[in-house]
Formats: sequence, structure tokens, C-alpha cells
Amino acid sequence: MPATKTRRTTRKPRSPATAQSLARQQREISISEFFTKNRHLLGFDSPAKALLTTIKEAVDNSLDACEEAGVLPDILVEIHPVAPANGRSAAENAAGAAPADGNGGNGRTPPPNREERYRVVVQDNGPGIVRQQVPRIFGKLLYGSKFHRLKQSRGQQGIGISAAGMYGQLTTGQPVVVLSRTARERPSRRFEILLDTKSNEPVVRVDEEVAWEADHGTRVEITLTGSYKRGQHSVDTYLEQTAIANPHVELSYLSPRGEKLVRERATAEMPGEASEIQPHPYGVELGLMARMLKETRCRNLSSFLKEEFCRVGPKTAAGILQLAGLPARMNPRRATQAQVETLLEAIAGSRIPAPPTDCLSPIGEELVLAGLQHGMEADFYTAVTRPAAVYRGNPFQIEVGLAYGGKLPADELARVMRFANRVPLLYQASACAISKSILGSNWRSYGLQQSRGALPAGPLVILVHIASVWVPFTSESKEAVAHYPEIVKEIKLALQEAGRRLHRHIRRGVREREAEQKQSYIQKYIPHIGDALQDILALSDRERSAIIATLTDTLERSRKI
Amino acid sequence: MPATKTRRTTRKPRSPATAQSLARQQREISISEFFTKNRHLLGFDSPAKALLTTIKEAVDNSLDACEEAGVLPDILVEIHPVAPANGRSAAENAAGAAPADGNGGNGRTPPPNREERYRVVVQDNGPGIVRQQVPRIFGKLLYGSKFHRLKQSRGQQGIGISAAGMYGQLTTGQPVVVLSRTARERPSRRFEILLDTKSNEPVVRVDEEVAWEADHGTRVEITLTGSYKRGQHSVDTYLEQTAIANPHVELSYLSPRGEKLVRERATAEMPGEASEIQPHPYGVELGLMARMLKETRCRNLSSFLKEEFCRVGPKTAAGILQLAGLPARMNPRRATQAQVETLLEAIAGSRIPAPPTDCLSPIGEELVLAGLQHGMEADFYTAVTRPAAVYRGNPFQIEVGLAYGGKLPADELARVMRFANRVPLLYQASACAISKSILGSNWRSYGLQQSRGALPAGPLVILVHIASVWVPFTSESKEAVAHYPEIVKEIKLALQEAGRRLHRHIRRGVREREAEQKQSYIQKYIPHIGDALQDILALSDRERSAIIATLTDTLERSRKI
Repeated sequence: MPATKTRRTTRKPRSPATAQSLARQQREISISEFFTKNRHLLGFDSPAKALLTTIKEAVDNSLDACEEAGVLPDILVEIHPVAPANGRSAAENAAGAAPADGNGGNGRTPPPNREERYRVVVQDNGPGIVRQQVPRIFGKLLYGSKFHRLKQSRGQQGIGISAAGMYGQLTTGQPVVVLSRTARERPSRRFEILLDTKSNEPVVRVDEEVAWEADHGTRVEITLTGSYKRGQHSVDTYLEQTAIANPHVELSYLSPRGEKLVRERATAEMPGEASEIQPHPYGVELGLMARMLKETRCRNLSSFLKEEFCRVGPKTAAGILQLAGLPARMNPRRATQAQVETLLEAIAGSRIPAPPTDCLSPIGEELVLAGLQHGMEADFYTAVTRPAAVYRGNPFQIEVGLAYGGKLPADELARVMRFANRVPLLYQASACAISKSILGSNWRSYGLQQSRGALPAGPLVILVHIASVWVPFTSESKEAVAHYPEIVKEIKLALQEAGRRLHRHIRRGVREREAEQKQSYIQKYIPHIGDALQDILALSDRERSAIIATLTDTLERSRKI
Repeated sequence: MPATKTRRTTRKPRSPATAQSLARQQREISISEFFTKNRHLLGFDSPAKALLTTIKEAVDNSLDACEEAGVLPDILVEIHPVAPANGRSAAENAAGAAPADGNGGNGRTPPPNREERYRVVVQDNGPGIVRQQVPRIFGKLLYGSKFHRLKQSRGQQGIGISAAGMYGQLTTGQPVVVLSRTARERPSRRFEILLDTKSNEPVVRVDEEVAWEADHGTRVEITLTGSYKRGQHSVDTYLEQTAIANPHVELSYLSPRGEKLVRERATAEMPGEASEIQPHPYGVELGLMARMLKETRCRNLSSFLKEEFCRVGPKTAAGILQLAGLPARMNPRRATQAQVETLLEAIAGSRIPAPPTDCLSPIGEELVLAGLQHGMEADFYTAVTRPAAVYRGNPFQIEVGLAYGGKLPADELARVMRFANRVPLLYQASACAISKSILGSNWRSYGLQQSRGALPAGPLVILVHIASVWVPFTSESKEAVAHYPEIVKEIKLALQEAGRRLHRHIRRGVREREAEQKQSYIQKYIPHIGDALQDILALSDRERSAIIATLTDTLERSRKI
């Protein structure tokens, strides 16, 4: 809170600030204070979104952990409505609160909503978390294992789950409760963790041994004010889409209304493991290069280039150093700024192969199809997995799936499902490169209706997945993909390929319907033609039947051609 | 850099992670490492945007400082192209770099562009900065005076200018250069500052006394790789729109092409000073309330409520405490969690006036009109300033200006100018509540053409300004306003009011054109009618002339009615 106090209702007379008075106001801002005030950056801008974000962050972590440990994920998600700590239910609160508008002020201030409270539980059968790490993983922003490496994973920032815990604490005062066990032969431990928002450090209230039936895994409980809704942006939709993009996951879900839902895995095959890669030389800028040179354990420039980057072998390293005019044996730590720049220019002037793509783990065309078929009833399905490409030195790969016709609603705009590293993106569609690419494609050329600047209309579902070692999101809440031209281009290429296949299906359908119509039309008249010919040529009944049979046969054959 | 080394080109055999191996990878992430990797969150995702963001952050700070000190701002902006430190020009670099595609990899990796380098200079006549504060203001992220208070200002996060400096350092290795003087009788000081991205602390390379002609003020120089372009998202557009929303500012601009431009101030009147306010009780959540109770210097609950919040007088405080069943003399620091919740419920159940609005400083209808008239040639101008409203306890105010007709391009979609606390927003239009409100308004009912989901078409400029003690941006780069329903509603109301006025103007124009057409049509035939009557009634020439005069006169009078 500001220490200085100003008068509340009347305009303060101007007392101009000086450099000295301004200096007294300067203060450090802790990262947790920053994100408390800017919580919408993390996906906590509304109660409904807060509930979804909390579940999403916990499930993302669980899936990442299971996959890294090579365990087929069994995930349990529960949402329990709870009463506030003072014992009154949300309903009682609502009844007790008098309306506060019509207060005569010139602004309109509704009293704050006393939202529902929920206790969210997410449990996995992953490797568990060692005791020393639990407090910081759940009680400190910007702490994690995924930020400092180049590897495809759902989480990447070290903010998500601790921010969810912070939001719960901010809105209900309740700590995050964590149960974890790393092996059958080790005890399970139960933690209660708060986050000190001034210092961004965890406060452990409870750390105790408990009995737990699981052999290994992690269970997180967060109590928060939220709002449970159905529809496009809901937890239900998130879990449904998670199952589509992660057919190897088994999901058990208890909704706040008490409904139980189990989504069994569609495949027992684990996704291909994504390798960690070194940075590609083309993606490294001056500041980073200077720091890498200072911090490397390599003793000379040649081994520095070969060890710290991907795709640099002895020949490439020698070529770069020759172009730069720098000795191969030079100590990297001694490079001057001008030499760093020269080195970067030599890199830009050298042919270096594209980064390896085994760091990516796309869903695969087969499983995209399986996911769509498992999730919805349509006439036509297709899937395209593009070859890997690169933006700013980071490999990425685009996949597109289409489902068309069948029981999909025919009178509405197409439904879009966006995924990044297998995580469904439900919010901020309009800010996303995926939406932009879909809107920017010409769907009329694939036989669909489309108004300018709008989604195509018809019984269509469009799935787009981007897999990358570093997905460039437009905000920390990871809801939309930034508009890198390389990414937009790849999405469009994938959409075009899938669109052409859809077009062939739609055209075939149109032709078949036309042919059927013609046939049924002629079929109706063949007997009359037979009668007429019998009349004119004075044929016998047998001759007439033969002619009708021949005509029908000819028609049949002509249709097949 | 990751310490572990993986093989570069072949897929590593799966070695499943364990809780222990995962624990070894857990690390703290410094805020500057986070924003280095996520620099697009701060507006540094492309060279063109980086140049704009750097200038924007520096100018925002200069304007805030001048206004707080009560000084009419004189702002100097210069962009100088510079050669890299190793002496080669950008053109030479381009010539020296061999093409690196066609390398046979399955991805496509173009070599990095060697972008142009620029030295950006922004200088103001503000109060200057005291010596001790300079390093942290320019060399530490999350440090500033504006985050911890509720007051309308351009900057609010304590990130902008230090992030610009960090970006310059990352791309060119150059420090931020700052000149500052706080008074004529004090010496000017010159600083060179770097930011240690591992610790997020400033490194002062130079701190020296220098001669400077200015009596007081601050001059910032940042060298960065960037790209200078004209058009919608350019520095030129930013400065043009800044002048429109800040008619009290005098701007001198030197473009990288050497063009000089001076925009003189349109008014010598300073904008009304915005007061700082205390938080409104309705906007405070459990976590914040608990912290305020712990940290307050007040000795009892009653004075706590009166001192720490706006709009709470003795009567309101007594009412709240009675409803909560808490004693007025209770020590705030002793409140239990259940008591905090009870207190919040009592607040929600009490009538508390809306927050004061003198914390807001809108541009004002008159100056919005002046800004538009100064900036473009149109037939019709109108401006609407709405009364203040409130979202999540934060007062805000919407202003709309329209310019129509004249020399504005008639065949294009309307041009939209978005402002937040007088700062032009040039990027991420599609993610912004302002755009959403404009697209969601029915412009056809105001006599304009509009396709569904599109901007209205015609010779129209739409200016929207939101002023608030805390503008909820969708990302740290402050380019788009988040979709709070209260904000969208207010923007729509302002657009409707301005739209109705525009409609009257357009209708009047239509009526006038129709009347003129009719008149000219009849006028053409009046002489013939005269001739015909002369013929039929055998009139003299004088009688004929008199009839023509009468008819013309009647026509004239009927038109005026």
C-alpha cells in the first residue's frame, strides 16, 4: 500500500513533484506483487477462467512429468464446491448482501460478487517430486526445470502452478496442499504451502509423512474462488480436447455437479520422446552469445562452437572461425565485443544445416485421426503433419486435422480446436496465429461457404497443433500463439493440403448426389418408355420387359463410368 | 545454458526420468532471463516493433515526469543510424554473408538478418532524476514509482525503459546512456548503465559530471538493432497520434532519414492533474485485505477502514463493523482468516459510494476536437467524454472522437486510433476491447456501410481513449486493453452518442443533396414553364419574367422549409 495518504474526495491542490520527491516514491516490485496485480496476464482475469487455468496448469505438469518418466498417464481431476472458512455458504452470502447501487455517486460500483469456492484436485501416477523441491515448485514464481532447456514440453515458464496456488491463496486464504510419493518403498509426504508475495518465497505450513495408497505420483489441491460453466471455454471442453490431442492419457473427472466421467486411453503407445537440443547458431543474438562465451566450460573457440550448439561439426566450426579470422585455440572468455560481433557475422555467412527435429514430438496423422474419430461423428476425416520448420532458431512442426459432415452442426461456423504442445488453447482466439491463418485461408476454393474475414460455415471441425521446443505465446497465460511469419506460413500450408482433400470429398459428394438424382429421375421414366415403345412398335410383353431391363442396365453402367 | 549435453543429430535412447533426476533440473529463473526469452511480451518481437517500443517507453516516462513536475513538456526524439562496433556497415555485412539455404536439412533455416542499428535519443525538460536512482530506473526490471499507487499515468509497471535498455544491450552490447540534471544550480551527470540479466541488477560503467546546456531534464540514449518503417505501426504514426492526444506537448523529431519535424503544442494548458487515490473497498480481495490488515499502521479496525480506503467515512466504517460483528477498537493485526472473510462480506453488504473520479485526467471533449482538427482535414468532428465508471474497484473514463468526410479516404475502412492514458496503442488491435467495441457497434444505423464483423467503411476516423488509475492491458507490452465488460459497455455508450451525432450530420447531408438536386431540376424547367404559359395565356414578356421570378422565389422558399 502507498505510505502517503491523500485526501479522499476533493481534488488535491497541485504541488509539483521534484526529482527528490519522485525519487522517494521509487520502489522495487516483487515478481509476485507484479503478477498479483497483473493476474490477467496469467489467465486469472475472471472466476471461470481462473478455475480452468488452475486445472490446466496442474494437468499440464502431470502429463509432462508422466511422459518424462515414461509412465502412461492416469490423471484424476475433481472439482468440489466448498463453503468459505467462516462457515457460511455462497448462497447465504448472496442472501445476506444488500444491493449497493443507487448510491448517488457519479460512477457505478456494484459490490464485489461473492463467487463460489471450489477445491480443485489433480492427481497423477507420475514420478512424484522429491521433498526438497516441493515448496519451491508450488510456492515460488519463476522456478522450474523447463525454462532453461530447449525441449518440447507443455510447461515452459516455471510460473503456472505456483501462480494458481497464489491465486487460491489470494482469494480464499487457503494454502496449496500437495501429496507426493517418489517410490513404493518411500513414504508419502503431505505439504501445505503458502507463497509470501513480498519475497516470492514459499512458506511451508505442514510437511508430514502420511499414508497414501498410490505407489508413486503427485496430488495437488488448490482452493480458490471460481465459477463453473459449461461451453466453449469450460473445464469440460478443456478435458475433452486434452483427450483428443493426448490419446495415450486416461482421464477421470468429477464435475462440481457430481457427474463422473472416465475417458479411457485410445492408445497404449507413449508419444515419441522429444530430445533436448542445444541452441542453433542462427538463433543466438549478440547478448546471449557474449554470455555463452563467458560462461562456457570449453577451453577454446572451436570446441565452444561444437559443444554449445547443435549442427556444428569440426568442419563447420573451422569454416566459421576462418571466416571470422579468429584462432581456433582462442580462449572463449577473452573474446572482445567486436570479436563477438565478427563471430556472429561469420555464423550468418556460413551454411549450417537446420536444427534436428527429433526434439519435436508431433501427435502424428494417425493419432490426430483417431482423436477426431473418437471425439465426434463425422463423414470425413483427414490429418496432415507437416515436416518440421524453424522460427528464430527454434524448430517447430504443424499438424492439421479436419472432420466434416455427419452429425456435425451444418448451420454454424466451423469449430476450431487449437493446440500447442498438445495443450488445448481455449481463450484469446482472435489474438492467435492459428485463428489468423484459418481466417486468412480461402475456404470457398475447397467448396465451403465463407464470408470475408470470417470462419468458413458448415459441418466442419478444424484442429491445428503446433509442437515446438519453445512456443511463442502472446502472454504468460499461454492462450494464443504469436504471429511469427514462419509459423503462419506453415499453418496455411497444412490447411491447404487438408482443404484440398476435403474439397475432393465434397466434390465427390456433389457428383454422387447429382448422379443419383439423374438416375432416379430416368429410372422413374424407363417403364413409361417401355410402354410407349410397346405401343409404337407393337412389341410383346416379353420384348417390353427385355427393353426395360436393357435400358436400366445401360443407365446403371453409364452411372458407374 | 543447460549444463547437460545431449547428442546432436540422432534420437537419444529413452532413459526415463525419476523424481531425483527431475529435481536436479529444477532452477530459479531470474525475471530478466524470463523477459529476455519472452521479449515479445514486452513488445520486442520484431526489429520494427523494438524501435517503436523503445521510443514509446522513453517518451511515456518523459511525459509522466514533466506532468508530475508541472512542466509543459518539450520532447526531443532522434533516431540515428549507426554502424556496428566492428566497423562494418549493415550494407557490407549483407554483401559479405553467403546465402545459407538449400542445405539439405528437412527444415528451412534462413541465416539471421543483420538488421540495421540505431541510436535512439529521447530528451525532456522534466525534473531530472536524482543520482542514486538512475542506475535502478534504467538497469533493473520491476523498479519504479508507479506500480504501488493508484494514479493515472502512462507508465505503471516499472519494466518498460529498463527492458528497452536490456534489449539494446542484448542486440548491440551497448549500455544505456543517461544524462540528467535536477536543477540549474546542480551539475549534470552522465551515466552508462548495463543490466546484469542473471541478477537483474544494474552495472554502472560510467557515472561522471558533464557539461549540459539544459537547466533540468533527462536524456536517454539506447543503441539497438531495429528496423525503421513508415505506415500504421511506425514511430511516425506513434508521434503523430501522441500529439493528437497530448496537445500540450511540443515534439521535435529527427527521423533516421534526416527529416526534421517540429510539432508545436496546440495548447499551453497543462492537463488537469490526476490525484492518487486509496483503493476502493469493493475492489479488495481476501489476500490483499489480509495483507493490508497485517501491514497497516492504524491501531484499530475503525481507523483502518477510514484511513486505508477511499469513500469510507466514520458512518460507513461503523456500519461495516456492525454488520461484521467486529469491535471498532480491535487491533487489525489480530484479525483471523475467518474474521477477514466476515469483514469482506460486510463490505459487500454495505452501500459504499463509487470511488472519486478526480484521480482521472481525461483529454476533454474540447481538446479531443482540437487534436482531431489539428491532425486531419474533415467535414465533421465530434467528441464525447463519458462520466467516470468503475471496473474491479478501479475508476476509469472513456472518450470518443469522430472525424468524417472532407479529405479522409472515402473508399477504405474507417481508421481507428486507440489510446490508453493518452498513449497511442498501435499493435494488437484485434485483441483489444476498443476494437471489439467498435466492431460490435451497429454503424449501419448511423448511415455508414458495414459488413458483418468488420469495421465501418467510409471517410471516418474513430478515436477512443481510456483513462484509468490502472489500465488492464492484455500483456506487458501494453498494446491492447483487456475485455472487462464494464469497459466494453462504456466504450459502446460513447460510440453510440458520437455515432448518433454523426448520423444527424450524414442525414442532413443527404437531405441537402436531395433538395439541391430537386431544386436544380425544377430550376432548369422554370424558364420553359414560363415560355409555355406565355404561349397559352398570350402573356407579355414582362408578365412572363414576373411569373418566372415568382416561381423561382416560391421554389427557394419551399426548399428552406
